[in-house]
Amino acid sequence: MLLEAVFHRPKMNWSYAVDRETIHLRIRTKRGDAKQITVVYGDKYRFDKLRDTAPMEKFASDQLFDYWQTAVKPPFRRLVYGFLLESENETIWFDEKGFAEDVSKNVNTYFNFPFLNAIDVHEPPAWVKDAVFYQIFPERFANGDPSNDPDNVEPWGGQPKYNNFFGGDLQGVIDHLDHLQELGINAIYFTPIFEATTNHKYDTTDYMKIDPHFGDVETMKRLVSDCHARGIRVMLDAVFNHSGGRFQPFLDVQEKGEASAYKDWFHIREFPVSVVDGVPTYDAFAFEPHMPKLNTEHPEVQAYLLKVARYWIEEIGIDGWRLDVANEVDHQFWREFRKTVKDANPEAYILGEIWHDSLMWLQGDQFDAVMNYLFTNAVLDFFTKDAMDSKQFADDIQALQAKYPQPITEVMFNLLDSHDTARLLHMCSDDKRRMKLAALFQLTYSGAPCIYYGDEIGLTGANDPDCRRCMEWDKDKQDSELFDFYKNLISLRKEHAALRTGSLKFLYAPSKEQVLVYERRDQQAVFVIAMNAAESNQSITFPLEQGRYEEVFTGEA
Amino acid sequence: MLLEAVFHRPKMNWSYAVDRETIHLRIRTKRGDAKQITVVYGDKYRFDKLRDTAPMEKFASDQLFDYWQTAVKPPFRRLVYGFLLESENETIWFDEKGFAEDVSKNVNTYFNFPFLNAIDVHEPPAWVKDAVFYQIFPERFANGDPSNDPDNVEPWGGQPKYNNFFGGDLQGVIDHLDHLQELGINAIYFTPIFEATTNHKYDTTDYMKIDPHFGDVETMKRLVSDCHARGIRVMLDAVFNHSGGRFQPFLDVQEKGEASAYKDWFHIREFPVSVVDGVPTYDAFAFEPHMPKLNTEHPEVQAYLLKVARYWIEEIGIDGWRLDVANEVDHQFWREFRKTVKDANPEAYILGEIWHDSLMWLQGDQFDAVMNYLFTNAVLDFFTKDAMDSKQFADDIQALQAKYPQPITEVMFNLLDSHDTARLLHMCSDDKRRMKLAALFQLTYSGAPCIYYGDEIGLTGANDPDCRRCMEWDKDKQDSELFDFYKNLISLRKEHAALRTGSLKFLYAPSKEQVLVYERRDQQAVFVIAMNAAESNQSITFPLEQGRYEEVFTGEA
Repeated sequence: MLLEAVFHRPKMNWSYAVDRETIHLRIRTKRGDAKQITVVYGDKYRFDKLRDTAPMEKFASDQLFDYWQTAVKPPFRRLVYGFLLESENETIWFDEKGFAEDVSKNVNTYFNFPFLNAIDVHEPPAWVKDAVFYQIFPERFANGDPSNDPDNVEPWGGQPKYNNFFGGDLQGVIDHLDHLQELGINAIYFTPIFEATTNHKYDTTDYMKIDPHFGDVETMKRLVSDCHARGIRVMLDAVFNHSGGRFQPFLDVQEKGEASAYKDWFHIREFPVSVVDGVPTYDAFAFEPHMPKLNTEHPEVQAYLLKVARYWIEEIGIDGWRLDVANEVDHQFWREFRKTVKDANPEAYILGEIWHDSLMWLQGDQFDAVMNYLFTNAVLDFFTKDAMDSKQFADDIQALQAKYPQPITEVMFNLLDSHDTARLLHMCSDDKRRMKLAALFQLTYSGAPCIYYGDEIGLTGANDPDCRRCMEWDKDKQDSELFDFYKNLISLRKEHAALRTGSLKFLYAPSKEQVLVYERRDQQAVFVIAMNAAESNQSITFPLEQGRYEEVFTGEA
Repeated sequence: MLLEAVFHRPKMNWSYAVDRETIHLRIRTKRGDAKQITVVYGDKYRFDKLRDTAPMEKFASDQLFDYWQTAVKPPFRRLVYGFLLESENETIWFDEKGFAEDVSKNVNTYFNFPFLNAIDVHEPPAWVKDAVFYQIFPERFANGDPSNDPDNVEPWGGQPKYNNFFGGDLQGVIDHLDHLQELGINAIYFTPIFEATTNHKYDTTDYMKIDPHFGDVETMKRLVSDCHARGIRVMLDAVFNHSGGRFQPFLDVQEKGEASAYKDWFHIREFPVSVVDGVPTYDAFAFEPHMPKLNTEHPEVQAYLLKVARYWIEEIGIDGWRLDVANEVDHQFWREFRKTVKDANPEAYILGEIWHDSLMWLQGDQFDAVMNYLFTNAVLDFFTKDAMDSKQFADDIQALQAKYPQPITEVMFNLLDSHDTARLLHMCSDDKRRMKLAALFQLTYSGAPCIYYGDEIGLTGANDPDCRRCMEWDKDKQDSELFDFYKNLISLRKEHAALRTGSLKFLYAPSKEQVLVYERRDQQAVFVIAMNAAESNQSITFPLEQGRYEEVFTGEA
């Protein structure tokens, strides 16, 4: 066996508590190397009596590696363990001391999961496993109340530009909840709704106030309560990395310079604040002068933002916070944030915007999940860009399953597009067939899928600002066939837990091909999903397990 | 190059802030595979202009791998990076997306260290890098006040048993500070001093009270103040995983059962509390009925223990806490503990007792360091047990250097023995020559060495209780030659930063041999240390760099 390929390190994604009794253990080996892996485990204080073994299951494979997992329940919540790796012609023992020829008798060199303390168990809200999100960019969803339109409002359906307005608002969302309920989604993610100067509202002016062009706190209360009445949860966008340029404390700093009581609310490198050669003299989001970075280490800033986080949960009853530019804010702030949010609503979903590997934010003390862009990238590369073959796609998806603890994978926020990217249909070169395959994969994979408003009725659009077009409400201009496709898939997903939390296995994913067959399986059902992402028709013959199968779209047996 | 061997994952020990400006990047490759590694890095929001490269240095190698490191200073504290690996005949690019043939132009697939937030920088107290600790087991160090002796005290120097007492106390330590100052140590680690029933005091009865057989709070204040006057810091032992069986809340639970107001202070599985077949009906340290595990998730328990942690810092001015059975207490408690302790004394050293891989306690939110038993094991295996050759020893030590961030390695608590193990001299089969080599390595390696009381004058002893013999104060019975050896080494270490924080390089560490040559180097000095751990004399010829060398023990050039 290739020893250099073997990897395990306690905690992180390698050993973690699943619930208050159960610990998952994982190990990595070179792909194809090991035929069988057995965990030897026990209680270090009574290893003579409290000792057992458990076979591991190969749950994922990527280009280079196999990943193995098993679940154990240590009776006294203390666990030591080592791995017995077996190939065709070799048996190797692996523990904290390294490799040996046989199972170690010295329990002191075993790996340790010292104690399963309940408070350390990372238990994301259970509802997220069953959620299908719908992302709304309020300025472009529906104009339900023309009386609050901005002065310079343009006619609905016009060309979106960086700085124009179409009058979308919260009343518009309330008016169209029937549409969402018919589609079947059960959670909404709203991009920011607090007072700000732009159409996207990522430049907050007042965190305690609904943007007057969107409505007021009463409208928002009605919206949340109407959503809840329909079984739809509501998540808001917390833009805590930076404020807007017209946030009162920043205005104060601009005005008073070093004499401002708010000077430490930001990271000012030089007074007076200014922009030199395109670089602000203060930290900002990117180099955007109108988005000064907040100093979340400052006790007053912390207290203010935590008040905001708590207020909107308690005042209007939201079910989650999506955290903008989450990975540029300090970890310590997010730990306090989590305590505040979970105290106000233990079932609140805390979702970080991180486009990259996010392991160190997902250890139970910070986020429940992240926007799963690593998933997005793989799906887009395979389904929309022909940038990889079936084998590489299956490898990438499985690598992702091994990257995080399983309970986290099950609540990841799986988006295919958003206000930050071109629309899915556009990325599919407006080929609806490709779009449907991508959505099919999204809606039959673990984690909470999110549909960007309008995708379901055929809205298209290139990168920002084009991806932020006004929602099409004219039924005749909506793609009802696409809508029905999404609706059916969502319904199927809601009906069958196997599609949400069942095991995933790729049954057919060869290199140099675009044909893919995979299954989702639990005790109740087995789904076999076959798709052809190539331009030409493909015919494959594929052996299925004995049993009664039903074609889910037609109901035929 | 062997791709399966290449490893990097952001944060942890692979990318971490060293200070408020500098980030260390590390990568692992198969031993001997790469000849050169270059980091390509920059600011993701202006990669066209803010972009640079840095060569990496191979800083450690173990049996299977080479480990490379470099330091970069991103001007706007945001960092993306990828690695260019070069072997004799191959060049490979490695970033978050995996391997490619050439440097990626797509900055979105680079690894991310999103923002260097000051509050997340793990900066352990600087004084620990320069500390030499001395561990005192107070019951056995010196009896300075016979008036507080236990009733059943035995004559000083008798045979230690699990349950006997010899009358050692805090006044005894005060009386002998001259000895410690002469030896040259500058920090003391005291095993527990709070009221308890045993001689080791790990079964706390009252966390707010000095054990009356040791003295009182006034004695302890004098001790700390006398130590501080001599430049000696004081660390106490926090036994927060479990209390003693006579801790008032546990007595209350024993008495009142489920009706006790303290029933949730512990983890009771069944009332009334009892012991069935050697297993208590409540969680305990190991299965020890007299050490009931504290429920550190309970707000009252948390508040109580944090009060204790703060009290002894504020009341008597201690410089650190050593945390008993640290890895069985929940992470969340330690996060609160760190905040409390650092708030009371930002320079306090927080040291966890963990005998195993401790990465997830050393991310800046919990401990500054752990008792470095992985170091202990390697040194004992090589110097006292002949259980490994020079190559394996060098491999193990270098693996350890790669396991944790460098600033942590520099403040690790490097012990060779303690009240929990046999004494160093005993493990050397009472061969002082071996003991000296082990101590020489300990005192010329990174991290804070700790000398167990009496080792320096030749005290020996097998496992507990024998390792807890009374200190020998009769000068005629002390090994003064050994004392001078320790004293000289400590003095040398204090004089030369190279021995504390210089780079480490093994110059000669062949397999099947016991001869070892290594250097410690910084800008000021280079030390070349050669030792023969074999029984027979060995002669090696070894080329040294040009320069003027001095034999440090004799002063000869």
